[in-house]
Amino acid sequence: MFTDKLIERIIEMKNHCIVGIDPHYNIIPDHLKNQYLKGEEENAENLAELLYVFSKEIIDHIYDIVPAVKPQIAFFERYGSSGLRAFERVCGYAKRKGLFIIADVKRGDIGSTCEAYSHYYLGEGPGSLACDAITVNPYLGRDSIDPFIEKCINGDKGIFILVKTSNKSSVDIQDLTCDGKRIYEHAAEMVVSLGKGHKGARGYNPIGAVVGGTFREEGEKLRSIMKANYFLVPGYGAQGGSASDLPGYFNEDGLGSIINSSRGIIGAYLLYKYKRDYDEKSYGKAARRAALDMRDEINSHLEKNDKVAW
Amino acid sequence: MFTDKLIERIIEMKNHCIVGIDPHYNIIPDHLKNQYLKGEEENAENLAELLYVFSKEIIDHIYDIVPAVKPQIAFFERYGSSGLRAFERVCGYAKRKGLFIIADVKRGDIGSTCEAYSHYYLGEGPGSLACDAITVNPYLGRDSIDPFIEKCINGDKGIFILVKTSNKSSVDIQDLTCDGKRIYEHAAEMVVSLGKGHKGARGYNPIGAVVGGTFREEGEKLRSIMKANYFLVPGYGAQGGSASDLPGYFNEDGLGSIINSSRGIIGAYLLYKYKRDYDEKSYGKAARRAALDMRDEINSHLEKNDKVAW
Repeated sequence: MFTDKLIERIIEMKNHCIVGIDPHYNIIPDHLKNQYLKGEEENAENLAELLYVFSKEIIDHIYDIVPAVKPQIAFFERYGSSGLRAFERVCGYAKRKGLFIIADVKRGDIGSTCEAYSHYYLGEGPGSLACDAITVNPYLGRDSIDPFIEKCINGDKGIFILVKTSNKSSVDIQDLTCDGKRIYEHAAEMVVSLGKGHKGARGYNPIGAVVGGTFREEGEKLRSIMKANYFLVPGYGAQGGSASDLPGYFNEDGLGSIINSSRGIIGAYLLYKYKRDYDEKSYGKAARRAALDMRDEINSHLEKNDKVAW
Repeated sequence: MFTDKLIERIIEMKNHCIVGIDPHYNIIPDHLKNQYLKGEEENAENLAELLYVFSKEIIDHIYDIVPAVKPQIAFFERYGSSGLRAFERVCGYAKRKGLFIIADVKRGDIGSTCEAYSHYYLGEGPGSLACDAITVNPYLGRDSIDPFIEKCINGDKGIFILVKTSNKSSVDIQDLTCDGKRIYEHAAEMVVSLGKGHKGARGYNPIGAVVGGTFREEGEKLRSIMKANYFLVPGYGAQGGSASDLPGYFNEDGLGSIINSSRGIIGAYLLYKYKRDYDEKSYGKAARRAALDMRDEINSHLEKNDKVAW
């Protein structure tokens, strides 16, 4: 079962943090751009190679300290089929290094269409990407999520359904109130109901939720609704979420959330905090340092709150 | 302006219908599978070529009678980077044949991430797909849609925001009631507000809405809320929507909606109605026949309701 395996890895590494691979063009060091683009800044093949090389270096520096990576497909899809090829190579490489792959794709469509997505992202046959988990959008309702659930139950996969996202405008739809409950609470109830009957050895089922780390109160409320669902928490670092806000996203067993940071790790070499010790050539080492710091910071806040899983 | 150009084409062709290119494996004729897969049913390259060849034949038979096609990316993404390459070729081919391309991608993410999507799908530079319009998911709110709006205003592009989708489970989230209004009405108000100030010569702005053809009452209600927004209406045919339900989706000027059919056109050769005259080798001709029949059926119902645009 996906969540059981993920928890095992989290405990083994004593780390609840995952690294978001969001290779935005602006975050990629100039020396790599010079080397791989050779002045042709708009050649999709070269740009895709650049994304791969950059991401691989990040993976090489964090694979032994974090349980999972979360590649954001948009930054690859930006370069079309060449970019998607790079995405496939990044996922393949991370997998060979033993990392869980949570593909951040936020797909959502009618059932027959989502079946196609589920085959590609969560399928194991030839021509499938064989990720461990993906993110899914709930706006189209249950029948749009069913094809992914099937892969969770019968294929040891996981999904994280968008419940309360980390961006400011998440309030526009997600915070509307219906029958005394926010839409994100209704989405949370859907997550609970979809996960019913699929609890693993650790008490969690493979139907997870995306809960932004930028809304502490909402995070705590959602923890109390979705006790047996794992949270994927974006928004830490660059988006403004801080470690002291996060213990409430965890259960008393010290489990229940994986915290993602993207720019704060893969772009650590650009941050004031790391600039003195690292430069654009040592961006991999800076990423490792930032990932270790993040692990320690989250763990220390969890310890203060008596929520320790090991 | 996208919607002005689209309306011009609709009037020129006297056709409100568009063809959804959803090449589900089961819909593709056996003789093509035999020819292109050569027994290797899981070779992504061959499968992608099959999707392209199938789609091209459809386009060849409808490009002169319909204003636009709506390729569904999931059926291409199913085969990863090879599939996306086929998607790019299909879009390029349809464009060369003079069709508007509405890429059905239903993307939605935080702003910085949606910028990457908007560059690829709606950008015009090298490495961009340069579609005319795409479908967008509203669950993350306004800041997630802004990067697409920018391309509508400054790049002559269009978007169709999911408001009320055609599937049964659309009720799960979209039909929840907040302050006396359904969530889809709140989404509709967001569409209206995003379109404000961008009205074109025909009275419509480039921010459209996806409104399922399977919910007649909701369609009529939404028409009255979003007077200046074009509707993309899925659900006709295979999903159960019928022409008599659709006049209420149009304004008094006889405009305001494009009606999509996918399986009912590209898989027409499989339907009882067309089986006598067509077979799997003449699936292109069957698609043309079905597209003409659909055009006539929609037009006749619009005429009955005194909603004629030409």
